Amino acid sequence: MRIEKARLIKPNYSDKISAFYWSEDALYILDQRKLPEREIYFKANTLTKVFRSIKDMLVRGAPAIGIVSAIGVYIALKELLKKKLQPISKAKLDKYFTEVINKLASSRPTAVNLFWALSRMQKIYEKFTSSLETETIDEKTLQVLLGKLKAEALEIWQEDILANLRMGELGAPLLPEGGILTHCNTGALATGGYGTALGVIRRALETGKKIEVWIDETRPYLQGARLTAWELSKLKIPYRIITDNSAGFLMQKGLIQAIVVGADRIAQNGDTANKIGTYSLAILANFHKIPFYVCAPSSTFDLSTTSGEEIPVEERSEKEVLYCWGKRIAPTKACALNFSFDITPASLISAFITERGIIYPPFRENIKKVLECEI
Amino acid sequence: MRIEKARLIKPNYSDKISAFYWSEDALYILDQRKLPEREIYFKANTLTKVFRSIKDMLVRGAPAIGIVSAIGVYIALKELLKKKLQPISKAKLDKYFTEVINKLASSRPTAVNLFWALSRMQKIYEKFTSSLETETIDEKTLQVLLGKLKAEALEIWQEDILANLRMGELGAPLLPEGGILTHCNTGALATGGYGTALGVIRRALETGKKIEVWIDETRPYLQGARLTAWELSKLKIPYRIITDNSAGFLMQKGLIQAIVVGADRIAQNGDTANKIGTYSLAILANFHKIPFYVCAPSSTFDLSTTSGEEIPVEERSEKEVLYCWGKRIAPTKACALNFSFDITPASLISAFITERGIIYPPFRENIKKVLECEI
Repeated sequence: MRIEKARLIKPNYSDKISAFYWSEDALYILDQRKLPEREIYFKANTLTKVFRSIKDMLVRGAPAIGIVSAIGVYIALKELLKKKLQPISKAKLDKYFTEVINKLASSRPTAVNLFWALSRMQKIYEKFTSSLETETIDEKTLQVLLGKLKAEALEIWQEDILANLRMGELGAPLLPEGGILTHCNTGALATGGYGTALGVIRRALETGKKIEVWIDETRPYLQGARLTAWELSKLKIPYRIITDNSAGFLMQKGLIQAIVVGADRIAQNGDTANKIGTYSLAILANFHKIPFYVCAPSSTFDLSTTSGEEIPVEERSEKEVLYCWGKRIAPTKACALNFSFDITPASLISAFITERGIIYPPFRENIKKVLECEI
Repeated sequence: MRIEKARLIKPNYSDKISAFYWSEDALYILDQRKLPEREIYFKANTLTKVFRSIKDMLVRGAPAIGIVSAIGVYIALKELLKKKLQPISKAKLDKYFTEVINKLASSRPTAVNLFWALSRMQKIYEKFTSSLETETIDEKTLQVLLGKLKAEALEIWQEDILANLRMGELGAPLLPEGGILTHCNTGALATGGYGTALGVIRRALETGKKIEVWIDETRPYLQGARLTAWELSKLKIPYRIITDNSAGFLMQKGLIQAIVVGADRIAQNGDTANKIGTYSLAILANFHKIPFYVCAPSSTFDLSTTSGEEIPVEERSEKEVLYCWGKRIAPTKACALNFSFDITPASLISAFITERGIIYPPFRENIKKVLECEI
């Protein structure tokens, strides 16, 4: 499998950390809601299960949900095969395929990697079906289509790992020595492997830089305290967790020299949707004149949105705020508001770290330039 | 009792909310660590119990710990009386009294109200003992001293309620209609009654202002989600809780028109120590051109500190961060840093709301001027 090849080339990449794995033609998703307490893998062998895994955040992180949704398309088509409805008319197959894509696309609205990955799967489907000379599809033909969809999904996965490793190489030299703050989880758990922003920190440490890692706990889901801390513990990288409201004071005290975060969608002009709290951090960095880096693969850029205002920001259940990891913290009838992401204007971002290069302002010009490069 | 008199004059002040009460010459402290789940009062009838109540945060909030520590002095002297050591030499009594003051003063370092209240109790003690003509103190004399200490403690309590009501009157007109964000808990639970910043919000609502209350959950102790929400629920005031990392995005979306917070210590120049996260909020308010008010009684001003740099900031156990209300959230060997307060420079504060008047910049000049006013 191609993914095996990708694994072989990653330096110091611990296989212990994987948001999901592929075994005997089935997808197993690590239920991140249970980390760091328990490591439980969920067998996602139906479209519904893949959909719920993304929607309910068993798996999260823009690149990871892109990969999982691509694999979900393959799983959904395999379900169809099992139903033994073949031969099936092309019209019926088209309808089914569109339903699959729409279902997966409706799981979460903000991260563009999801739509990007689904669109890649759709292209494979369309290329294959449009080349067919008959209007009905038999089992053998469906098997060939399945093979192509699987290959594409695994290719997306492999490309993501390679992009992460490349971003680590490119981004590590940017980080100053001293305290580096990161928000949410952008490590192996949020991606195909290795990580985006956390990958840059890992790589900087691997190259011998003296870095103190600070982790925002990242309420309400606690991606920082639960997931990033869990990853760094596994990697034996020392770190300290702070509450989300502490970052400003640490900057005032000179304990933070740079901030590096991931992204869920980056508009044409560089406005960036990322985990709630990112925008506040960017303002704090700006106030303290600390560099603020966004690290994301090219699949996170959405050149069809001109600015952050056009990016849909997911509002999740208030329960996630009223509870802290399963324990109710607020009075019985309390209300809450739970924006899952926020939008950081490009003007607050020092640079983007992508697998195709570092992008500096002016972003509207340079994003296009760098992303159009062949790699 | 004087406190009864104070209660009579407070308009719309719900007696249902009280951080502590005084009954049959004993102090009962509401264990705020258990709110909103359970309302349990702890009988604090020894110096050690009062000390632990403050240190372990059964009671918290700068004005509240000031009042409780004053009552603690009375309780400690009553303990001495019970030991039947009288007649006691003045030297021995002085030594005991100093130990009591030092013990209570060591409970928490940041909020100056604690030291202010203890200093008031000390003055009463010194005035009384210096007027004595003998070097030994009999039971009857000790009883008289106890009466004076009790009266002073209850006077401090009464003054605090009156100050809060006055700050409500003075501060309410400052608040614009729309969304008002508050941080931590500054209500009846943090004070002798009614509240400081939350009192201003209450008063503004009582006067008919259309205000939407936003509460920062305020990790790690969750004073917002647990305590402020509990108070507002009791008062039937609608509110919504947000995670601490959401405030910036709400400001960007125009949902917040002003921020009002309390304080633990205010230096001569207006630099303000308050709950961790206050400094970040002040920067966010500044960035969005939203007024940022600090509401605190004159007992919170420490004119002996010239700037925020001199204010000691309490660092509490990392466990408070690694756990969320009793539930471990981070991996087993995770480390955290837990500053309990931060320092907001005066330049980020729009005005101080005190019981003696609103203080606008230039603060170094105006703080002195307003605090020296007779009321």
